Amino acid sequence: MHLFSNILGVFVFDKNFNVVDKMLFSGIEDCKNKEKYIEELVAKHKEAISPDSSGLKKILLYFKDAKFKDEFYNKNIQLAKFDIKNSVRSDILLIQAISSIGEIDKSINILTKVLREWYALHNPEFSAACASHEKFAEEIVNKEKSELLNELNINMPDSIGADLQQEDLEPIRRLAHQICDLYQLRKSHFDYVSSVMDELCPNTKAVCDVLIGAKLIEHAGSLKRLSSMPASTIQVLGAEKALFRHMKTGAKMPKHGLIVNHPLISMAAEKMHGKIARALADKISIASKVDYFQGQFIGDRLRRELEERFG
Amino acid sequence: MHLFSNILGVFVFDKNFNVVDKMLFSGIEDCKNKEKYIEELVAKHKEAISPDSSGLKKILLYFKDAKFKDEFYNKNIQLAKFDIKNSVRSDILLIQAISSIGEIDKSINILTKVLREWYALHNPEFSAACASHEKFAEEIVNKEKSELLNELNINMPDSIGADLQQEDLEPIRRLAHQICDLYQLRKSHFDYVSSVMDELCPNTKAVCDVLIGAKLIEHAGSLKRLSSMPASTIQVLGAEKALFRHMKTGAKMPKHGLIVNHPLISMAAEKMHGKIARALADKISIASKVDYFQGQFIGDRLRRELEERFG
Repeated sequence: MHLFSNILGVFVFDKNFNVVDKMLFSGIEDCKNKEKYIEELVAKHKEAISPDSSGLKKILLYFKDAKFKDEFYNKNIQLAKFDIKNSVRSDILLIQAISSIGEIDKSINILTKVLREWYALHNPEFSAACASHEKFAEEIVNKEKSELLNELNINMPDSIGADLQQEDLEPIRRLAHQICDLYQLRKSHFDYVSSVMDELCPNTKAVCDVLIGAKLIEHAGSLKRLSSMPASTIQVLGAEKALFRHMKTGAKMPKHGLIVNHPLISMAAEKMHGKIARALADKISIASKVDYFQGQFIGDRLRRELEERFG
Repeated sequence: MHLFSNILGVFVFDKNFNVVDKMLFSGIEDCKNKEKYIEELVAKHKEAISPDSSGLKKILLYFKDAKFKDEFYNKNIQLAKFDIKNSVRSDILLIQAISSIGEIDKSINILTKVLREWYALHNPEFSAACASHEKFAEEIVNKEKSELLNELNINMPDSIGADLQQEDLEPIRRLAHQICDLYQLRKSHFDYVSSVMDELCPNTKAVCDVLIGAKLIEHAGSLKRLSSMPASTIQVLGAEKALFRHMKTGAKMPKHGLIVNHPLISMAAEKMHGKIARALADKISIASKVDYFQGQFIGDRLRRELEERFG
């Protein structure tokens, strides 16, 4: 007696390869939980075993019959659809959200460049005095030229900016308004990424903060892939160009990739960077493994150890 | 007797180069209208003439005195400020506005790319069916997945998109909303460009429409520079790369630059492109010259001639 299962159901064949018993799957969910059906049939036919290769050949010949064709075709499509539908895990959503933050940053930069050039025709003094893009856009939306100059202790007539009509200022204000909205959108996406990470990878988040953690996962492709990387790979993730230059030409090995923006590294002295990056990558590697296998929360301890050593 | 004027005022010197009469300027406006003062002094001192080169040297020695230094310094700064302030003409505003439209288009493209990828996790069927970026963003903001699938005659359970939670859909909707806002901003900037062109260059606008006209002025640097260009330059404006490749390697001469998007060209048969581009560039050259020297409105006639010949 042989036991055989495929996408249609679970079958028991006798030694002449005729079907003696079967349980057909009604939908894809049954197929995904086929163990239950197999156990049931094994209990009924205790002598049923998996076929050897010559037996398998004969069983497959049985299913070659044209009457199964449509059913195989439809069930396989259903199975593929089911798998695609259920392939969306929260790290895919996380990667989309963090990549949208990257593109929003790009948009903000190119639009602010235009805004600064355009507004400088009217008020070059303020353009020069305000370094923050976000504050720049906000102030233009909310304040008149005279107010902005007052804050800089400059009299209106001393300004070398042109006196523009309201109708010429209106499009500039609208652009500034849009840039403020983009900053708002960035913040709300940031909060979303942060909340997804609370569920998905609290340890990684605790060790390397929201942005760096999310970018590491984005770069690796998934939390699973990040968790399977050695610490030395995580250390230079995002610095592939420098890494391959090092391997090809013997140039200096990169000390760090994406993690360079971590406060522990960016606030340390230059000569400590390599050492801290190595220790940090170690901890991230541990944290991501704990996250992937859904272990306990140890992120705060890992972070504290780093801070006590280098902070 | 010698008459001499500089940034300080208008002076009359006797033949020993002592000042016998003078009118000092109180501000930059006076300096800009010095003709009035010169006329007044000439009327009083009929024998006063412009100094020859040896006389000029002695007059300049007189002004070398340290007592004038501060006044020269301050007046020159005022003059420079005045000139900068008044250098903003409406074609500079036009160029800023059209360049902002270009950057808004870039932002829309990179953000829509993210949006399509992100939303396709949830509803790949609609992503594939909707080609227009603008409509895509609008529909996502306004409609649920089930409504969008209904329009495509697809049942909800047949969709291979994941069933996302509302909190996972919210950031996607916000992004789509932002893209809609960017389209709105683009429209309002377009209207602004159009209204500026009505004042600045109605003929160019009539011949080659808003976007192409504004881009030509942006590319040339100003209406003045565009109007001084030969028609053959206007024809390939924006195709510099192909032009220099032609000159360097003898590759094919480009038939058209920015004007390739003009409806007369884009809707004509391929083999007519060169001919139409030549005629169109001719008319644009005429129109921009008329605009720069503020002649009468002949744009509609120029356009009609083109349309009768090629339309």
